Amino acid sequence: MMDSQVFQSFSTYATIVILKMMLMSPLTSYFRLTRKVFANPEDTKFVSSAGDKKLVRTDPDVERVRRCHQNDLENIIPFVVVGLLYALTEPELSAALLHFRLFAGSRIFHTFAYVAALPQPSRGLSWMLGMLVTFSMAYRVLSTVLFL
Amino acid sequence: MMDSQVFQSFSTYATIVILKMMLMSPLTSYFRLTRKVFANPEDTKFVSSAGDKKLVRTDPDVERVRRCHQNDLENIIPFVVVGLLYALTEPELSAALLHFRLFAGSRIFHTFAYVAALPQPSRGLSWMLGMLVTFSMAYRVLSTVLFL
Amino acid sequence: MMDSQVFQSFSTYATIVILKMMLMSPLTSYFRLTRKVFANPEDTKFVSSAGDKKLVRTDPDVERVRRCHQNDLENIIPFVVVGLLYALTEPELSAALLHFRLFAGSRIFHTFAYVAALPQPSRGLSWMLGMLVTFSMAYRVLSTVLFL
Repeated sequence: MMDSQVFQSFSTYATIVILKMMLMSPLTSYFRLTRKVFANPEDTKFVSSAGDKKLVRTDPDVERVRRCHQNDLENIIPFVVVGLLYALTEPELSAALLHFRLFAGSRIFHTFAYVAALPQPSRGLSWMLGMLVTFSMAYRVLSTVLFL
Repeated sequence: MMDSQVFQSFSTYATIVILKMMLMSPLTSYFRLTRKVFANPEDTKFVSSAGDKKLVRTDPDVERVRRCHQNDLENIIPFVVVGLLYALTEPELSAALLHFRLFAGSRIFHTFAYVAALPQPSRGLSWMLGMLVTFSMAYRVLSTVLFL
Repeated sequence: MMDSQVFQSFSTYATIVILKMMLMSPLTSYFRLTRKVFANPEDTKFVSSAGDKKLVRTDPDVERVRRCHQNDLENIIPFVVVGLLYALTEPELSAALLHFRLFAGSRIFHTFAYVAALPQPSRGLSWMLGMLVTFSMAYRVLSTVLFL
């Protein structure tokens, strides 16, 4: 399967967007530690030897990163699943690369727009572009292999 | 791989349930825009040129759709992963179709039951049926390929 | 594909960690029913025939299980996606087994550490070990098939 260039490019872009999604976890940890905002009482010991329960609270910046992470889960995982099936339908390499590059670009911009709170509709449009790429791949999968 | 009818039917049903899951995002946006309830200050500009911070709040109907979306993530993604491995174990086509159809049907009903707030245990039973389908496929995967 | 021992072991461990993740749902239900804490008004009928709206509230133990479930989604799904591509790059069986076993072990310990609220950094270290395993597999995928 890894002999196909389409599958190689799918593997590359799928890994890149999954890594991008995973980086939201350390980013959340960074904000939690620097802002001293924790979700669990036992975590407060990282910054306070006494284990201060007042540090168990929410913070707008931490919640923003977490919403961005959640949006990644809701969009990147469908891309990976549908993209895998799409790659197996043997599309043209150029068409496949266009889908994968547009998706990866739109999600990297989306993260930047979300974390930096850029004015709308920048984030909304990058989210929509990613959705459209996945819909387009889903259309090809269904029109190629439909078996109900 | 796409020559196998089992794999074609898996691809079809996996794409359908992933698309169903993805449709929760526009549904959330629809409720946010019509109820004027936003998660980010910059999003309020969609409905108010002044950017009214009082619109950053929660709403029971928006939270209901978001819980349904979260439940999809927790159930549909395991189905897709386990279903892919299950399809590769070369099950009988009729058995595979039974699993895939039951799952897709149960999740479509689950969404309807959740968003329309149907009386319990309708939603609980449809959730349980989906879980049982995935457990059944996982059992076949483990009993066929177990290699620890 | 299922003839490869590496793919068999991937299928086994992927199914195990997905099943572990799915078990967080019944655990959440168990805590909701025993603590009488619900997310939806219609769910209160499971414990109160009158449908008591005061039971729609949050509870620290339920939220703890839900955070653990969310952490699973954020870590186990990337493992499954990257692990599938990694298994297709035909790594040494011993190297593959080391990755899969370390990940499964780290996530099972992570769940225990989270639900039992063990003192940090036990949970933090098990989370980091799981991340490192996935990063290591992603490195091999990208260095083997990179096609941008």
